[in-house]
Amino acid sequence: METVRVALGARSYPIHIGAGALDEAELYRPHLGGGRVAVISNPVVAKLYLERVTAALTRAGAEPPVAVLVEDGEQAKSWASLERVFDSLLGARLGRDSVIVALGGGVVGDLAGFAAAIYQRGVPFIQVPTTLLAQVDSSVGGKTAINHPRGKNMIGAFHQPAAVIADVGALASLPERELRAGIAEVIKHGFALDAELVAWLEANIARLIARERGALTHAVRRSCELKAAVVAEDERESGRRALLNFGHTFGHAIETGAGHGAWLHGEAVAAGMVMAAELSVRAGLLAQTEAARVRALLERAALPVKGPAIAPERYLELMALDKKAARGRTRFVLLERIGQAAVRADIDVQLVRDAIAAASPSASAAAAQ
Amino acid sequence: METVRVALGARSYPIHIGAGALDEAELYRPHLGGGRVAVISNPVVAKLYLERVTAALTRAGAEPPVAVLVEDGEQAKSWASLERVFDSLLGARLGRDSVIVALGGGVVGDLAGFAAAIYQRGVPFIQVPTTLLAQVDSSVGGKTAINHPRGKNMIGAFHQPAAVIADVGALASLPERELRAGIAEVIKHGFALDAELVAWLEANIARLIARERGALTHAVRRSCELKAAVVAEDERESGRRALLNFGHTFGHAIETGAGHGAWLHGEAVAAGMVMAAELSVRAGLLAQTEAARVRALLERAALPVKGPAIAPERYLELMALDKKAARGRTRFVLLERIGQAAVRADIDVQLVRDAIAAASPSASAAAAQ
Repeated sequence: METVRVALGARSYPIHIGAGALDEAELYRPHLGGGRVAVISNPVVAKLYLERVTAALTRAGAEPPVAVLVEDGEQAKSWASLERVFDSLLGARLGRDSVIVALGGGVVGDLAGFAAAIYQRGVPFIQVPTTLLAQVDSSVGGKTAINHPRGKNMIGAFHQPAAVIADVGALASLPERELRAGIAEVIKHGFALDAELVAWLEANIARLIARERGALTHAVRRSCELKAAVVAEDERESGRRALLNFGHTFGHAIETGAGHGAWLHGEAVAAGMVMAAELSVRAGLLAQTEAARVRALLERAALPVKGPAIAPERYLELMALDKKAARGRTRFVLLERIGQAAVRADIDVQLVRDAIAAASPSASAAAAQ
Repeated sequence: METVRVALGARSYPIHIGAGALDEAELYRPHLGGGRVAVISNPVVAKLYLERVTAALTRAGAEPPVAVLVEDGEQAKSWASLERVFDSLLGARLGRDSVIVALGGGVVGDLAGFAAAIYQRGVPFIQVPTTLLAQVDSSVGGKTAINHPRGKNMIGAFHQPAAVIADVGALASLPERELRAGIAEVIKHGFALDAELVAWLEANIARLIARERGALTHAVRRSCELKAAVVAEDERESGRRALLNFGHTFGHAIETGAGHGAWLHGEAVAAGMVMAAELSVRAGLLAQTEAARVRALLERAALPVKGPAIAPERYLELMALDKKAARGRTRFVLLERIGQAAVRADIDVQLVRDAIAAASPSASAAAAQ
């Protein structure tokens, strides 16, 4: 078992990483408060892991947990899902000393984390991520949210988990497409923050796709270390944390433009990274050969390097609503070099159109709409 | 203008108290961030004060604010109201650097504060309370929430305002019943925390009811000082802050049991304080003569000293769901003496029934149900 610590003063917490972690009662025990627990999951994950997590919680001294299953997919990040959660928790009379366990991927983590943030003005929660994307990214850092018809993650809270229990053994059951979507976020951590991780990925991408445990553990641990350092420095994203959004400004536009659920988050971020890299080149920050490394690594992971058929103007519209828009001006996370991202707000809109077109399936047709 | 400071480190903020405060551009100016502002209010308050607040905000350099009006009354503390707020804010493309102004009473403050807590994972907000209850209590301390069919304030967040602007001049337009409901919370601050305030109230209750500005300013300032000190010590109510809930465990049961909106919050707290005082006597903590002072002061303010016709068993049921219930055990805020409240969890349930009966309209009939 390896442990990475997120240093946030009174809100510090451990990330435990290893095969079999979700069965370890000792990892849950310090965080169980009054002993009443709700596990929020989805039907697919619950079938695979709910019994094991319930057994570990019980060994750790918890009462039999209240299980609440929500749908899978982005559309589950809705107020309707939250209401089902709250009805169950209040129905079972769970008080402020209860704990919520998020068992699943990014959707369950975002939803359960937000439920924990606002249930009775906030209860602790434990992340038990079962997808690679959740293990390397979304379960760490305390960002929780639901979606709004006008945009992704528009309603939410910063609410740090009490612990993250990342069982790389659970990745064996992950559908291929979701594994690759998770790899997109590992690639993001590399290009935005750590040239060494990029080099490691270029050498080990095949082992990662083959789900070798050593490679998975390395990718999860290194991603968590990088993210933990950034979050410790800038919990609420007033500065450096925005660098973790490399590929996400375009990515969110892709997800919303294509309709929630059509693209996996990691897929949209992959195509978004290509656009951001192309924009970095056009803004004179990055060499074309370095942008080519972004594209090449994503292609080796069989991730999309082109967005859907959305007109550039529609992208601009969608991005103006992005949460990172300051005073109506869209800010972009660009690359200054491999492993070093920076936020820029002074980008000419024509360069943005060009960068989108360079990573679009039928650039000229879309631009003409 | 008088200013009370809530000392919470980086989340510290001023409470400005005085006649004409809501017209003072300088009080808003330091908190306007990117200059985009949404004012959340209700139709009655907006008619009286929205133009003045808009003028002050504009003088302070804000763009013309987006106004969102929600219904009046507890039923407005709903997800449906929040959705209307979010639709307006997203429709106007307000970003993370926007500010929300809560213009109204406790309902608007709780709703707008919660909207600010979760809009794009949190934006700052300014409380401009226009009722006595909001000025002496709910606008200070960062408790925000909406209601759930199973209980009041079940969904919410701790989100401190950036500033509170309490204009006692606005109390001139307050309906008599709401003025008295606000006085209930001043009385609560006295009995729970400050014997001197109780003595002052016993001497000055008539001036307060007559809305003398000097008396109103004293009541607001002293209440804010008392509350600020408690909140600074225990922001998230893990200890001492619970003392501010004197009368509230019974009070919430009254509000829910009578149906949201039938009783004003302050009215329910008034009857709840009589029950809590009676329970304090029965638990051997308080002299009957001291409990009589609670009842006498409330009667002089024409506040209810008896609950509605709800059976004691129904109270017990409703209180078990109270957020203050720890491990299924209802905790009570009782008086050890005038001006000194304490939390107790070891109270015999029969004493609770007796205390409820002692402050019920037809005790024997209700108990027999």
